[in-house]
Amino acid sequence: MRPKPLFLSDENMSLAVDLYELTMAAAYFENGVNYRSTFDLFVRKLPKNRGYLIAAGLEQAIHYLLNVRFTDEQIDFLRKHPAFKTVSDDFFDYLREFRFTGDVRAIPEGELVFPEEPILSVTAPIIEAQIAETYLLSVINYQTMIATKASRVVLAARGRGVVDFGSRRAHGPQAGVLAARASYIGGCVATSNVLAGYELGIPIVGTVAHSWNMTFDDEFEAFKSYWKVFPHNTVLLIDTYDTLEGAKKAARIGPDLKGVRIDSGDLLGMSFKVREILDSLGMKHVKIVASGDLNEYKIDELLKNGAPIDMFGVGTEMVTSRDEPTLSAVYKLVEQEREGRVIPKMKLSDEKVTYPGKKQVYRRKGADGMYREDVICCIDERLDGEPLLVEVIRGGELVYRIPPIDQVREKAMESLKMLPDEYKRLIDPAEYPVRKSERLEALRRRTEEEILRAEVVGGR
Amino acid sequence: MRPKPLFLSDENMSLAVDLYELTMAAAYFENGVNYRSTFDLFVRKLPKNRGYLIAAGLEQAIHYLLNVRFTDEQIDFLRKHPAFKTVSDDFFDYLREFRFTGDVRAIPEGELVFPEEPILSVTAPIIEAQIAETYLLSVINYQTMIATKASRVVLAARGRGVVDFGSRRAHGPQAGVLAARASYIGGCVATSNVLAGYELGIPIVGTVAHSWNMTFDDEFEAFKSYWKVFPHNTVLLIDTYDTLEGAKKAARIGPDLKGVRIDSGDLLGMSFKVREILDSLGMKHVKIVASGDLNEYKIDELLKNGAPIDMFGVGTEMVTSRDEPTLSAVYKLVEQEREGRVIPKMKLSDEKVTYPGKKQVYRRKGADGMYREDVICCIDERLDGEPLLVEVIRGGELVYRIPPIDQVREKAMESLKMLPDEYKRLIDPAEYPVRKSERLEALRRRTEEEILRAEVVGGR
Repeated sequence: MRPKPLFLSDENMSLAVDLYELTMAAAYFENGVNYRSTFDLFVRKLPKNRGYLIAAGLEQAIHYLLNVRFTDEQIDFLRKHPAFKTVSDDFFDYLREFRFTGDVRAIPEGELVFPEEPILSVTAPIIEAQIAETYLLSVINYQTMIATKASRVVLAARGRGVVDFGSRRAHGPQAGVLAARASYIGGCVATSNVLAGYELGIPIVGTVAHSWNMTFDDEFEAFKSYWKVFPHNTVLLIDTYDTLEGAKKAARIGPDLKGVRIDSGDLLGMSFKVREILDSLGMKHVKIVASGDLNEYKIDELLKNGAPIDMFGVGTEMVTSRDEPTLSAVYKLVEQEREGRVIPKMKLSDEKVTYPGKKQVYRRKGADGMYREDVICCIDERLDGEPLLVEVIRGGELVYRIPPIDQVREKAMESLKMLPDEYKRLIDPAEYPVRKSERLEALRRRTEEEILRAEVVGGR
Repeated sequence: MRPKPLFLSDENMSLAVDLYELTMAAAYFENGVNYRSTFDLFVRKLPKNRGYLIAAGLEQAIHYLLNVRFTDEQIDFLRKHPAFKTVSDDFFDYLREFRFTGDVRAIPEGELVFPEEPILSVTAPIIEAQIAETYLLSVINYQTMIATKASRVVLAARGRGVVDFGSRRAHGPQAGVLAARASYIGGCVATSNVLAGYELGIPIVGTVAHSWNMTFDDEFEAFKSYWKVFPHNTVLLIDTYDTLEGAKKAARIGPDLKGVRIDSGDLLGMSFKVREILDSLGMKHVKIVASGDLNEYKIDELLKNGAPIDMFGVGTEMVTSRDEPTLSAVYKLVEQEREGRVIPKMKLSDEKVTYPGKKQVYRRKGADGMYREDVICCIDERLDGEPLLVEVIRGGELVYRIPPIDQVREKAMESLKMLPDEYKRLIDPAEYPVRKSERLEALRRRTEEEILRAEVVGGR
């Protein structure tokens, strides 16, 4: 048997889908039900210690919607699968011609988002909108979570550069490149992931590993041998044997040396001692890079204590969002059109209530120019403030200029600047005010009453 | 600009690499240093509450090693990158011909592994072994973590089926299919991820979503419309409006109904009440499926309290290993060959000590046939017990029969049965005994002394 890589591709991404999306598609089809429906993708509440989210992943969502297709081979697989044995051939013919023909509105990448605000809103025949659910959630959940986490690490670093070193600990190879993208949007200055540099033009950087130093008989020889090849671009790893001795040997490289990296031990104490050694040897220009299971909390602590660290390499904790490794965005039916009528939809049971109808979000600034509150309203309301959702896809066609990643990153940085500090605290941030408009609240009450009435009348 | 999907492929996986692997490769090349070197991939310690790991991801690691190449376009990208401006053309010519030509030994997928045991051991010219680091770690870290997490959920379920529902919350679309694979190895009975079914033949299953029920004017109509299409295979979601009313309506489907799913609320209380309703309506055969942010701890609690749940759908918590979302496997240089001499290698600094030399692991059983202890030893020692590392790749060629996934899953189930219960406790499991052989300990002491001597003599 040949080993399988389990790669996603334009061809097979259609199957990166939960089976029930396809069985429901078949059931809609067989019932002759394909109402134009709107689904909102949103987060119910923020993960612990998060005061905001940075929207990310829209570009990959758009790619999916513009390109999703089912191949003959895939259709054949489904047709033969026991789950579909009672489904007519007509459905498989439908799948063969399947295209996303709907409309999509979204909050652009890099923009701040808060709970219940639709990051994405899909309006399409329900079969199309339903099939897209799994993929849309998987690209937006992960990148939004990582852009947000990275921005926290960047805030903690107080202007010092943060570099993504996480590929080896990301949840598989694709997660590594998605994390590089999202963490750059969140404010990282670079990544170690070469593919992200190749595909997206993100700055890529690197130092050396312990294995390099261990290959040579003595550490100074290792340092010199690396520097000879990269005379203008050498950041040496000095903690392989003894960090302070390593610092002294690194200093012997001379003025060309760009930096040293410490990857273990007491980073606070070591950074002071290493700085002292470098300075005393006339190497004031040499930067100190710190790495090793860092996160926003540890970086904050280091810098509060004045650690003379110039740059942080952050991996595991950032690309897995270790303290809160899931963003549970959901994708909920909020409206359907039937015979010209618009029917608002919502789920009632228990804690998981959703607001019905197509929506817009207005962000309002205070007199100081800072973000003051958001209002979620019905789509056709015109309120003060800046509307956040923009048209992205209309009738299956792209009607949106996909911004270059540097522009997305810039937007995230600008938006964060306008968010008052209390919402950016690393621990227990204040809750940013998100209101619903009176019309949206009224629509919700009306919809709730109608559902309860229908259930009581029709349900027994 | 066209939206980019950021897919991995046979073509671009070579760039799913940390930049420093390539700059070190260039520096080795320019220094004329390409010693045959051995790197061990292992976990230093188990994540919290884990008493074992299930090895997974080897198949994807093998695929990478057999197929990694650099294209002209990629080489051109690297050549023009500022990081490489001082590197000679010869290195890029070398990259053009780059193949993995080394040897790989590994603990087969599905086998239990413990800290410090090499899951994978790569012996190759150092440039080849070094370049592979990032990718190997990213496929083995994630799948091993998820297979392990899934096995805990499966243990908690005490024989009831556990299904992977996590694709939408996995860290990107590829993570979804990798999680489906790993969680199947860990003992899940099926996945909702269709691609995993298509690529690997894993059983795929699904129920319905709330949006289905909300599309119809009343819930019973929704239930009936779905059942009509899938008369032999209908599991209805009953918590859209009122779970108990939902159960009554579901029962009206009649004897064809296969199951009902509860996705919110108090699963314990609801499962009893739903069971009672179903039984009282003559629907004893109808299974109850529970889902909604479940994990091993919650499932254990539910079943300790006798919840009449027949199957669990587990998503977010399993595919992100939410309580411990990282497995920090490392890839460490342990040996080099130079001019016919074998030189053991190890890192000394601080807490991060590694054992030198090529290794084997023997697993020993007690008189009761249960696993008793593992011994990590030098590769040429012959000890009692079963040796775990097998040859996988020799001279760049596959010399291993890649087992079908069902066989891997079977091995995991069998191995777990032989692991005494105290190591399988969900909370605070006992520590499985892993010893080092006397020869390995002696090698470590000798290597340590030699490094210290060399550093003292050569390092000032």
